[in-house]
Amino acid sequence: MFGQEIQQLIFLLSRFPGLGPRSGRRLALYLLKKREATLLPLIHTLQKAAEAVKVCRECGNLDTSPVCSICTSQKRDQHVLCVVEEISDLWALERSGEYKGRYFVLGGKLSAINGVKPEDLKIPFLVDRIKTQKITEVLLALNPTLEGQTTLYYIKECLNGLDIKVTGLAHGVPMGGELDFLDDATLTTALVRRQVV
Amino acid sequence: MFGQEIQQLIFLLSRFPGLGPRSGRRLALYLLKKREATLLPLIHTLQKAAEAVKVCRECGNLDTSPVCSICTSQKRDQHVLCVVEEISDLWALERSGEYKGRYFVLGGKLSAINGVKPEDLKIPFLVDRIKTQKITEVLLALNPTLEGQTTLYYIKECLNGLDIKVTGLAHGVPMGGELDFLDDATLTTALVRRQVV
Repeated sequence: MFGQEIQQLIFLLSRFPGLGPRSGRRLALYLLKKREATLLPLIHTLQKAAEAVKVCRECGNLDTSPVCSICTSQKRDQHVLCVVEEISDLWALERSGEYKGRYFVLGGKLSAINGVKPEDLKIPFLVDRIKTQKITEVLLALNPTLEGQTTLYYIKECLNGLDIKVTGLAHGVPMGGELDFLDDATLTTALVRRQVV
Repeated sequence: MFGQEIQQLIFLLSRFPGLGPRSGRRLALYLLKKREATLLPLIHTLQKAAEAVKVCRECGNLDTSPVCSICTSQKRDQHVLCVVEEISDLWALERSGEYKGRYFVLGGKLSAINGVKPEDLKIPFLVDRIKTQKITEVLLALNPTLEGQTTLYYIKECLNGLDIKVTGLAHGVPMGGELDFLDDATLTTALVRRQVV
């Protein structure tokens, strides 16, 4: 039906997370129909990103310098370290604008099934860093999943005996959420940890 | 929060049809986290497509030759011409594998509101082509929308008096559709045009 170049483009776009063959075809047409307005700027931007973007050697975030702008910023609290699973979690926390410390991206979570061990997540390196860098608080902002919580308790265990405050994110009713649509576990937690208003 | 290169990439991806800021960020991370596996192949494929893909000068389809593989194929019936609004419609009809003639892509539909006139859709060129190329059937596969049907009747009018069969797609219940979820207009049409089984 059409040349190999178009087929290959649709194939790659279809494999994007959250997309499929239908949206792959739609995006391919969007790019091919308006070459100057969409396809060429995208190629240019991807090339720029491929050249410039690096993984921060301190925290694992993505940026254009070997050490990212969060790690080099003098405005951030150097004594508070937030541990997250993925870069997307770091980005999400940054959007809130509330957190003023630094980060450490694990790049995954401990998993017996997938064979992910502490060394795969650089947890020994993290613990070393916490010990040597005068960290006073470690915020373990890990996902409330089985593997996320396993990782949380493993890291907490590693920090045992050190004079460091280990915290986690608060659980409860999400802002804007409706009680009727919440799962039982969240509601139970919100009740148990109810606060004076 | 992050460099201009990442921001620009997220911005472009967010403007893809059907995507938004959240999926834009997700795709940017997908590309940046696995440079070798996703970002570089995508750049390569986009460049290949930008160089090779052309608009067929006969029908308006996209392909890698000046005249597309459908227009040059000797297996296709040269006397049947299917008129569609967009290239995506042509691709959809080709996927069915049922149609054996050639195509003509209008690139839009007549619209008083958006100021789209017959010349903008190359309808005079289409009518000329139908007259000179011994076409025996014109299948107007236009969308069942107000503007699609306006375009259909305009083209039908242009072909008046010529010895050409002008057809449209059948309307009725979609295969696999449930009656309960169908709109009234479709059900009415399906009833009026009911067939002996």
